[in-house]
Amino acid sequence: MQYLLNINEPKDIKNLSYNELDVLAQEIRQAILNRTSVLGGHIGPNLGMVEAIIALHYVFDSPKDKIVFDVSHQCYAHKILTGRKECFLNNELLRNISGYTNPNESEHDIFAVGHTSTSVSLACGLVKARDIQNQTHNVIAVIGDGSLSGGEALEGLDFAGELNTNLIIVVNDNERSIAENHGGLYKNLKLLRETGGTAECNIFKSFGLDYVYLENGNSIADLTDVFTKVKNCSKPTVVHIHTNKGNGYKFAQENKEKWHFNAPFDIDSGENTVDMSALNYNSLTADYLIEKVKQNKNIAIINAGTPGAVGFTPQKRDLIKDRFIDVGIAEEHAVAMSSAMAKGGCKPVYCVLSSFVQRTYDQLSQDLALNKNPVVILVAWTGLNSQDATHLGCFDIPLISNIPNLVHLAPTSKEEYFAMLDWAIMQDKYPVVIRIPSMLFNAPFAVKTDFDKLNTSVVDIKGSDVALIGVGAFYNLALKVYDMLKSKGINASVINPRFISGIDENTLNSLKTNHKLAVTMEDGILDGGFGQKIAAFYANSDMKVLNYGGKKEFTDRMPINELYQKNRLFPELIVEDILDTLK
Amino acid sequence: MQYLLNINEPKDIKNLSYNELDVLAQEIRQAILNRTSVLGGHIGPNLGMVEAIIALHYVFDSPKDKIVFDVSHQCYAHKILTGRKECFLNNELLRNISGYTNPNESEHDIFAVGHTSTSVSLACGLVKARDIQNQTHNVIAVIGDGSLSGGEALEGLDFAGELNTNLIIVVNDNERSIAENHGGLYKNLKLLRETGGTAECNIFKSFGLDYVYLENGNSIADLTDVFTKVKNCSKPTVVHIHTNKGNGYKFAQENKEKWHFNAPFDIDSGENTVDMSALNYNSLTADYLIEKVKQNKNIAIINAGTPGAVGFTPQKRDLIKDRFIDVGIAEEHAVAMSSAMAKGGCKPVYCVLSSFVQRTYDQLSQDLALNKNPVVILVAWTGLNSQDATHLGCFDIPLISNIPNLVHLAPTSKEEYFAMLDWAIMQDKYPVVIRIPSMLFNAPFAVKTDFDKLNTSVVDIKGSDVALIGVGAFYNLALKVYDMLKSKGINASVINPRFISGIDENTLNSLKTNHKLAVTMEDGILDGGFGQKIAAFYANSDMKVLNYGGKKEFTDRMPINELYQKNRLFPELIVEDILDTLK
Repeated sequence: MQYLLNINEPKDIKNLSYNELDVLAQEIRQAILNRTSVLGGHIGPNLGMVEAIIALHYVFDSPKDKIVFDVSHQCYAHKILTGRKECFLNNELLRNISGYTNPNESEHDIFAVGHTSTSVSLACGLVKARDIQNQTHNVIAVIGDGSLSGGEALEGLDFAGELNTNLIIVVNDNERSIAENHGGLYKNLKLLRETGGTAECNIFKSFGLDYVYLENGNSIADLTDVFTKVKNCSKPTVVHIHTNKGNGYKFAQENKEKWHFNAPFDIDSGENTVDMSALNYNSLTADYLIEKVKQNKNIAIINAGTPGAVGFTPQKRDLIKDRFIDVGIAEEHAVAMSSAMAKGGCKPVYCVLSSFVQRTYDQLSQDLALNKNPVVILVAWTGLNSQDATHLGCFDIPLISNIPNLVHLAPTSKEEYFAMLDWAIMQDKYPVVIRIPSMLFNAPFAVKTDFDKLNTSVVDIKGSDVALIGVGAFYNLALKVYDMLKSKGINASVINPRFISGIDENTLNSLKTNHKLAVTMEDGILDGGFGQKIAAFYANSDMKVLNYGGKKEFTDRMPINELYQKNRLFPELIVEDILDTLK
Repeated sequence: MQYLLNINEPKDIKNLSYNELDVLAQEIRQAILNRTSVLGGHIGPNLGMVEAIIALHYVFDSPKDKIVFDVSHQCYAHKILTGRKECFLNNELLRNISGYTNPNESEHDIFAVGHTSTSVSLACGLVKARDIQNQTHNVIAVIGDGSLSGGEALEGLDFAGELNTNLIIVVNDNERSIAENHGGLYKNLKLLRETGGTAECNIFKSFGLDYVYLENGNSIADLTDVFTKVKNCSKPTVVHIHTNKGNGYKFAQENKEKWHFNAPFDIDSGENTVDMSALNYNSLTADYLIEKVKQNKNIAIINAGTPGAVGFTPQKRDLIKDRFIDVGIAEEHAVAMSSAMAKGGCKPVYCVLSSFVQRTYDQLSQDLALNKNPVVILVAWTGLNSQDATHLGCFDIPLISNIPNLVHLAPTSKEEYFAMLDWAIMQDKYPVVIRIPSMLFNAPFAVKTDFDKLNTSVVDIKGSDVALIGVGAFYNLALKVYDMLKSKGINASVINPRFISGIDENTLNSLKTNHKLAVTMEDGILDGGFGQKIAAFYANSDMKVLNYGGKKEFTDRMPINELYQKNRLFPELIVEDILDTLK
């Protein structure tokens, strides 16, 4: 490490020559590989942007000039250049920083983000604030890698086209999203690449933006040249740079999808160093859906740029060809299109992550639920987790279950999950959302499949005094609590509510005869969730209720044990509370 | 009425000559004016599209061919031609239909919609379903009138650009949104109009779509000509038609913003026939904000294409010039940009309708709340109402209040509303959302302004036995219940919770000493709402709770009395329940 060890802030690179910066880029690349090989992370996006980020910091003066990274999954080089290199080089310190920009870490990070397509709008806000206060710095948005097709990004580009002031939008065109790109605008990017940016038909110009093209987006010399030209520009200007995702690391260049985000790996061999073979809902779901599509040609799988979310590797996508419809990063479109496909007589199954279903509330409500079209939505990566604050899975229950007309299901086991999927795909009356559990369990009891009887729960164990109501993944927690209570002489009931979107009033009423306490457990935040519906139902009776779930908060990489401890989600803590309440 | 009386379905117009169709257009125009003069409605959008809709039904074969209207606030001529003319001509029947497309009314209406920017995505879904099932009909999306700038529309256009099959997108370019157009793409539409559609830089072509331009979008002959040319096209094709909003009605042509949607009026004079002079939160809010902006140049008002939502008439917008930022229909962008403006040191106040705040869940959560930037958001047109199912105001409490970090306030009176606004604008610690009440009341008690003490309620009347907790507009209902209880010898407490995003545990605990029952009242749905938080708080105690609010459902133009009756929201019904519970 000839140069990197001396770099503590961006100004430390400003006196280096292009040749020295090229060496620095290699050192940064090594640092990125060191971190990601141990922790996993976004390898391809970060490797592709090393040169561009060096050039940005070489030409502009952060934090006076503001750089806003889209998704910010490409910001590692930026972190390395802004005082955080030790968190890439020293394995003891890797966990001190997040994988995304984070204002708590550095004044060079303007926003905490992790979802796509936000940078242009955020940059527009910084521009407005700058101009209102008569300041003069540059504002730079860095977007690309699939993010352009998101509605928020396109709204931002459209608005930017009306500004008459400094704004630089660096479009990182690596010809990719996580998977291949989707959407007509990528044909335009291709045309622009092929014409060296000279084609008259230009999506950016049509939004009213100025435009510059750079073919070699991994050349520091070329990048500094083009950034110098647009620095202090007085009109919003797109700098379209053609980069190589995974640049400089053979494996990441050869298999761009796998290396977009990868688990820990051996740098020399590219092999994963953690066992990836465990059964999980991702691969099971993909295999199941592939079979279904083969049986019924009217079924189609819809996805918005995250095919891995439910296990659709390129090989598995190939098996069902045009029945796997990746709309690109365009979650709103995915829901609306699914609704219309169902209206038109097909059976779309839209697969989405909990964290990204947040982008579609209005489409779920108006385009889908109001129209009652029989779409199936699978929400993956749900539940309380130890992820970054931008990738939590704990908010989808309040988000989805309080929208009328949606049938929202919480399977408690693998067998029940597939039974629910069978039913959801067969029926044609309701939009159905299935919350894929965070943990895979086998069914401890025979699975009842009468899902046509909406909002009916199943009493799996008929006891007395205490009714344990375990939602989805936390049904297993209810069973553990049951066992511990039994050892203390309390024979509780155990109930699988199955439906999150409504409560089973008959069963709940019948419990009143010989139960004093209902205990709900759900793998999500409590506010607006299922447990509060139970509490409200019993509020006017003598039945007491305890609700277990997460506090309404953005946790950030909180270890799961700590998260469970603070929310008292361990069986022994719940039993303690139950005994306390029964006193 | 020479022709209209004989038109019962679209095929009835197919044998008319162009001259006869022109007369029919005038008759339809009269019918539209008859309906809207009595009921109010979207006058300008409907008058501008009469000819285009006649031509669509002349050329295509609905319902085999599918026409999807964006927002569907321009669909009156379509309703008239598809068997519903009596609901425009016979004043007894006006209320039998809604102002939007509605599949319950007719097989010619494919979707229930009322929000903007959905038509292209919905049409793409119909296209996919058609092709999967090897059907051959045409699918037509009708969009424009400001809707193009919405993220969902742009996502849809981008996806459409990848299709290689029949899809016709009619872009109704009337040079307007509700107010003037905003966004760079409208400069491109202008260029296309000025070049007769020949400019090479073409937003639609840059998305990969074929393109045709028609200058006279109010000529039935020209329209049928162009629609005939694109009928059965085998590639997605945009038909850009230049229309005249309000066409054929002098007043609507002269003041396009006022006549976008107007209250009942006299056809001859254009004067409103209902008294519009009552004080309301719209005009009060605009006047207040104008004063604030004059005092503090760092304040800016942000709006997404609905300036009337909070009383910003063109005259009032002029008073604060560039401090009123209309981003066009781009709600996601509005929230993200506001967050960044606050980060950059300004104080943005984003004004939005309850029904449209639904479009921004992820932006509220990630772009704003996670980043804790001190934006002020005013949510207008809240509460249970008798509007169309697409324009309800009852879902925003579960939507907003369950997002961490947002301070969500529910003013109970005019005075408290402005005190909260004062505080929200002054402070710089929190993103603050204020829910503008559906009803304007004067404060019955002195307003406490210690909003810095988050989640603290105010006990306005200290009683015993029953605690009445009235949220926002329903605080007045709590007072009425208080009076009725008093007449029956019960001296209840009355509590103003002020905050919806959290509960006042101290006050709630103190109530336990001499209260048996807490009664919550909120002007929104119960599921995921504030009352359920109170129920959950008391669930493990002897305090009983009754929650009042709306059922989780899409009501559709339900008279408010009926809605209140079925949810027992009249004071005498609540008192009845309270007495029953206390027995």
